[in-house]
Amino acid sequence: MKLQHASWPEVEAYLTRSTAILIPIGSTEQHGPTGFIGTDALCPEVLAEGIAERSGALVAPTLSIGMAQHHLGFPGSITLRPSTLIAVIQDVVNSLARHGFDRFFFLNGHGGNIASVTAAFSEIYAEASLGSAPSNRPALRCKLHNWWDVEGVKRLSRELFGADEGGHATCSEVSLTYHAFPEVGRRLAAASDQLIGERAPVGPIRDAADYRRRFPDGRIGSNPRRASAEAGAQLYEAAVTELTNVWRRFAEEE
Amino acid sequence: MKLQHASWPEVEAYLTRSTAILIPIGSTEQHGPTGFIGTDALCPEVLAEGIAERSGALVAPTLSIGMAQHHLGFPGSITLRPSTLIAVIQDVVNSLARHGFDRFFFLNGHGGNIASVTAAFSEIYAEASLGSAPSNRPALRCKLHNWWDVEGVKRLSRELFGADEGGHATCSEVSLTYHAFPEVGRRLAAASDQLIGERAPVGPIRDAADYRRRFPDGRIGSNPRRASAEAGAQLYEAAVTELTNVWRRFAEEE
Amino acid sequence: MKLQHASWPEVEAYLTRSTAILIPIGSTEQHGPTGFIGTDALCPEVLAEGIAERSGALVAPTLSIGMAQHHLGFPGSITLRPSTLIAVIQDVVNSLARHGFDRFFFLNGHGGNIASVTAAFSEIYAEASLGSAPSNRPALRCKLHNWWDVEGVKRLSRELFGADEGGHATCSEVSLTYHAFPEVGRRLAAASDQLIGERAPVGPIRDAADYRRRFPDGRIGSNPRRASAEAGAQLYEAAVTELTNVWRRFAEEE
Amino acid sequence: MKLQHASWPEVEAYLTRSTAILIPIGSTEQHGPTGFIGTDALCPEVLAEGIAERSGALVAPTLSIGMAQHHLGFPGSITLRPSTLIAVIQDVVNSLARHGFDRFFFLNGHGGNIASVTAAFSEIYAEASLGSAPSNRPALRCKLHNWWDVEGVKRLSRELFGADEGGHATCSEVSLTYHAFPEVGRRLAAASDQLIGERAPVGPIRDAADYRRRFPDGRIGSNPRRASAEAGAQLYEAAVTELTNVWRRFAEEE
Amino acid sequence: MKLQHASWPEVEAYLTRSTAILIPIGSTEQHGPTGFIGTDALCPEVLAEGIAERSGALVAPTLSIGMAQHHLGFPGSITLRPSTLIAVIQDVVNSLARHGFDRFFFLNGHGGNIASVTAAFSEIYAEASLGSAPSNRPALRCKLHNWWDVEGVKRLSRELFGADEGGHATCSEVSLTYHAFPEVGRRLAAASDQLIGERAPVGPIRDAADYRRRFPDGRIGSNPRRASAEAGAQLYEAAVTELTNVWRRFAEEE
Amino acid sequence: MKLQHASWPEVEAYLTRSTAILIPIGSTEQHGPTGFIGTDALCPEVLAEGIAERSGALVAPTLSIGMAQHHLGFPGSITLRPSTLIAVIQDVVNSLARHGFDRFFFLNGHGGNIASVTAAFSEIYAEASLGSAPSNRPALRCKLHNWWDVEGVKRLSRELFGADEGGHATCSEVSLTYHAFPEVGRRLAAASDQLIGERAPVGPIRDAADYRRRFPDGRIGSNPRRASAEAGAQLYEAAVTELTNVWRRFAEEE
Repeated sequence: MKLQHASWPEVEAYLTRSTAILIPIGSTEQHGPTGFIGTDALCPEVLAEGIAERSGALVAPTLSIGMAQHHLGFPGSITLRPSTLIAVIQDVVNSLARHGFDRFFFLNGHGGNIASVTAAFSEIYAEASLGSAPSNRPALRCKLHNWWDVEGVKRLSRELFGADEGGHATCSEVSLTYHAFPEVGRRLAAASDQLIGERAPVGPIRDAADYRRRFPDGRIGSNPRRASAEAGAQLYEAAVTELTNVWRRFAEEE
Repeated sequence: MKLQHASWPEVEAYLTRSTAILIPIGSTEQHGPTGFIGTDALCPEVLAEGIAERSGALVAPTLSIGMAQHHLGFPGSITLRPSTLIAVIQDVVNSLARHGFDRFFFLNGHGGNIASVTAAFSEIYAEASLGSAPSNRPALRCKLHNWWDVEGVKRLSRELFGADEGGHATCSEVSLTYHAFPEVGRRLAAASDQLIGERAPVGPIRDAADYRRRFPDGRIGSNPRRASAEAGAQLYEAAVTELTNVWRRFAEEE
Repeated sequence: MKLQHASWPEVEAYLTRSTAILIPIGSTEQHGPTGFIGTDALCPEVLAEGIAERSGALVAPTLSIGMAQHHLGFPGSITLRPSTLIAVIQDVVNSLARHGFDRFFFLNGHGGNIASVTAAFSEIYAEASLGSAPSNRPALRCKLHNWWDVEGVKRLSRELFGADEGGHATCSEVSLTYHAFPEVGRRLAAASDQLIGERAPVGPIRDAADYRRRFPDGRIGSNPRRASAEAGAQLYEAAVTELTNVWRRFAEEE
Repeated sequence: MKLQHASWPEVEAYLTRSTAILIPIGSTEQHGPTGFIGTDALCPEVLAEGIAERSGALVAPTLSIGMAQHHLGFPGSITLRPSTLIAVIQDVVNSLARHGFDRFFFLNGHGGNIASVTAAFSEIYAEASLGSAPSNRPALRCKLHNWWDVEGVKRLSRELFGADEGGHATCSEVSLTYHAFPEVGRRLAAASDQLIGERAPVGPIRDAADYRRRFPDGRIGSNPRRASAEAGAQLYEAAVTELTNVWRRFAEEE
Repeated sequence: MKLQHASWPEVEAYLTRSTAILIPIGSTEQHGPTGFIGTDALCPEVLAEGIAERSGALVAPTLSIGMAQHHLGFPGSITLRPSTLIAVIQDVVNSLARHGFDRFFFLNGHGGNIASVTAAFSEIYAEASLGSAPSNRPALRCKLHNWWDVEGVKRLSRELFGADEGGHATCSEVSLTYHAFPEVGRRLAAASDQLIGERAPVGPIRDAADYRRRFPDGRIGSNPRRASAEAGAQLYEAAVTELTNVWRRFAEEE
Repeated sequence: MKLQHASWPEVEAYLTRSTAILIPIGSTEQHGPTGFIGTDALCPEVLAEGIAERSGALVAPTLSIGMAQHHLGFPGSITLRPSTLIAVIQDVVNSLARHGFDRFFFLNGHGGNIASVTAAFSEIYAEASLGSAPSNRPALRCKLHNWWDVEGVKRLSRELFGADEGGHATCSEVSLTYHAFPEVGRRLAAASDQLIGERAPVGPIRDAADYRRRFPDGRIGSNPRRASAEAGAQLYEAAVTELTNVWRRFAEEE
């Protein structure tokens, strides 16, 4: 069930069954010349929908804008500063905790979010540890899980793309969006021959100017010419299957 | 064009035509017993899509979580504190300004956002006025426009619902979501007979406990039993038509 | 009774009669070539004194500096950033709430404060709604009221000045200061012939550089050559009479 | 010249003569059973007016609310948190620096402000030292001066009150307000016999509960029964004379 | 060379040779019944000294207090909130960048710091990416390296302690402190028989109350009875050797 | 006992005897051409060790980085902004207060810290006074004491150095470091003839550029050529003796 498509009495009823909620979190940032700017938000969003269909999970609206300062050299990229993202996650968790939610499963689509979201969890836990949390806030469990960090997905990525998978604008994430939005995917993929050459270089990530210099078209280590909607369909199936289990274990653990 | 569905070279090309961007902003909060919790985000999101189809506007991802502290007495409602929302809008605007965007049209779906978003604009302008903005940031124009604040929509609301329109969980916004998501709409509307009685009371808005006491089922002044997908279709057409003009004037003004 | 002129036992006694307090809030910013820089603070200050004389209201010290970033192109203007103003109002309200005050009536003299002060109220309410307010803080009622937003004043302004009233450095506010401080008023008014020409232009408000370009002498839409101490006396009487009633209703409502 | 009573062209003219500004800063807090709650703001305010008459100094509106957390056990006391006060002073200084002011003389009426205001100066200087100040901000000089910290005032206090002067609600500050506002002074002084007994105790200052326990009627070390309007007149003259010189040296130093 | 033991002309001279600086960062938190509370700060501190002896690196004072909210259930543990730690690292880096340092090597002793420090790096880079960094700040390179994350150390830990190594209050870190401070080490180790039983449990890390419940004596997965000064000496040698190379590559890379 | 060298059961035992803790706080900043950059941290650190030996005080890790914005014109100097330092001290105190510590003795080595640390105490006390402190936090006592502010030390400084003592890079503090770290002291002192001429000038402290202009080699008013390890030994003895008494009175007072 999508939280946005529920009424409050429906959420009230859900809370009698479960106090866990699934929150897709992504980013709005360049994904190379043929990738969706929304890739990192769209992937966890469509996967969360799949998980919800199979498990009945309640899905919060996607946090579409993440920590992407290093991509600001490419038009369309948007970042929250880490300090802003921490405040957002604090507010989201504290709001939902007022209703009795105490298990927060952030399904993540962007490596650049990991540090800030993990820091946000500590900031939230620190409220309890330092004694400044709302007095009636329950003990909370926050979990960040990258959608690609399940065995089946990693195996499939290796099989399908090998060394062309890369680190940013990966074949897997590009494929997943091509599968989920086939029409847009065809439009973007059409520019592949013209815009994508070799596998992209790899290197460290620093500020936006440095990033643009090192990775002139935005990709890191990938060759998304090998991406396809068909591969995306396989990845979708593998990811939803396994992530549904991860979600269930988290939602139901003691 | 949806920013999330564009590649960065497409945004680069868009910037040669226009430096304006359309940003739907809403809220995730109860809308009475038969309204979508996502009403205030979904309405500007679907309208922005309509505006974009007719005008070619670039549409940023919806800011789905707004300032909704007064709704926290109802399960599922989420708020950002005003200070957090201000930081979010600062970061979004400053990110896009790096690419050359200088006209920001926030299409708003939630009255509770107005003060915080307007304050955010002042915070952003103050960076320029106090001399602390990025040195190469262009002069910015920020505009907040509520989707219902156009003549045609207000007339239609009056004609269709009269005094039952109300102030929160209004017939118009509920209708618009029923039109946009008919299947969910039917599910939620089915509870109307059981859950909705009289027209809801009116009164001041303070904190969440006070709100829940004054407005026991969440509605203010409305009777959304009169909402319908058909009315929503009419409202959609009226809103998109007129808002497209508002957008065009903003995007093209000297 | 002025809070600054009271002793703490007198405030303690006041609190047995009323838990409401009147807080003038203004701004320190240019008001055209012949207006007091303190106009927006002085107007609510003198009116609050009048209200207090008639009603016995306790009046806090005027918050003389508000959100005026757009006026920074003119010497003498001072702004608080919205985030600073929010913090100030939070602290003032939370301090007074420790003593048992629970009704806060901000008598406002500056349109530019509205968004930030309203956002501050939400920030304060959110402390309660999110459960982080002081545990023994009572439920609070915060109200912002612009001094000119009463029927009698608006009627008088229309009658006296018509279209010359304008939007900033209005005939009404300039008149009110000329009435309250007649000697200074005469000094400032003396420059009218030399410094004030036509009715000023109107337009949107953005940052300080844009403002100065659009409104070269600081006025918006007004022609304060028509301002006078006599008109100010009439406006004072109309405002105090009606605002005293507004205050009483707020202070005494259930 | 009072900034609030000036027009912007008058401030523009002042800046051709001087880039120094005098800013009274005080507090709103209990001053014992017979002292004005506004004592610490009113004293520097009236003295600043005297200094301005003799020297032509431009006087900003008084910052009436300071850091007074320890007084919150007494009705009517208001505090800004140190972090809020720092932000306020930053904004005031940075606003005025945009106009060319570069010498800021804070005439202080409250010992509890000293640390926070001094920290604020460092925060402002740090913007320059760390390279984050507005690029065209001039080098700034900020000075905090307590009104009683001049030789003539300290001598007079000793002569007039000896050991009864005390540390809070001192005979000198109470006298100065009785002189400046004689009618209110008489009202407050009338309660002296009933409310003031011995000289008050002394001790360390911590939080508000501790303060109220140590200093049950709010005074520290003083016996303001010895305060009088006559003594206040002498103190006023001594203070204005000497502070005018301090101001002049600051405003004119190389 | 220790920065604390250098004069500024010596630092000036160092900067002609290198713009890299080594910053030990740790934590002050319980390390089980027989571990130093300072373990995580002392380990990188002593290793940094070793690296400096071999490479001439300049070593900043250790940041001894880190993000340790989960340990607050045990006496003596101190935490910075993530938001505070981010501000500290921002200030340290921005201060040193004023002098021309542009390579910051944080030698880390505490897993709980990783997210916050990494987020701090992004906050710092974001200043550049968003255009708000000091205008003359050079492009920066920030690196966090855990002292145990080198091949030789991991191999040695496995060989020496196998599955008893654990995750917190590990045999390796306890050994390293026993080696560095043998006298204190003997005092603490003397309580091993009495206080340490089985290998400690493992599990997730949340807030302090949850942590204390899961890990009653503070250890996670380790049995530090196997720790020894002799093992510490081996680990010291392995770590310094390999980390000196890591430092050199970072300090000298193009 | 050093906190870093204790185990948590040892701290638990200490808390049954005392709830006071000694926290050295200093700075990392230039101290003239022949002074340690760490002078202000090293002095309270070595003295705290001495106090602890005689009194059994528990000593927290030194806060080595303070508020030193004015020294940023000299290589190696590091500052925390006042707002950052306030947050650090808040977190340190609130962490330790969770364990039952309620007396915090900050032994200070740097005049530039006084305002920010004192403001931090007020920020902490304000949490209690405004009702936002952790509900079970005990009443706290925070004290800042400069190591040189004891009679015996001041007398000795006068006798040993007279007018050459100065205000920054004083003969006393330089001597104390030469005594504590004789080898480094000899290295630094060796440059005295070449680098130190006359007694340094005096003047006000503002931003870093102004400071470097006024005090070209970093010293204020001192001539540290007169500093010596022998003088340092005398100062150490005088300081430890007297500060131990100050500590004892604080730790044991009612």
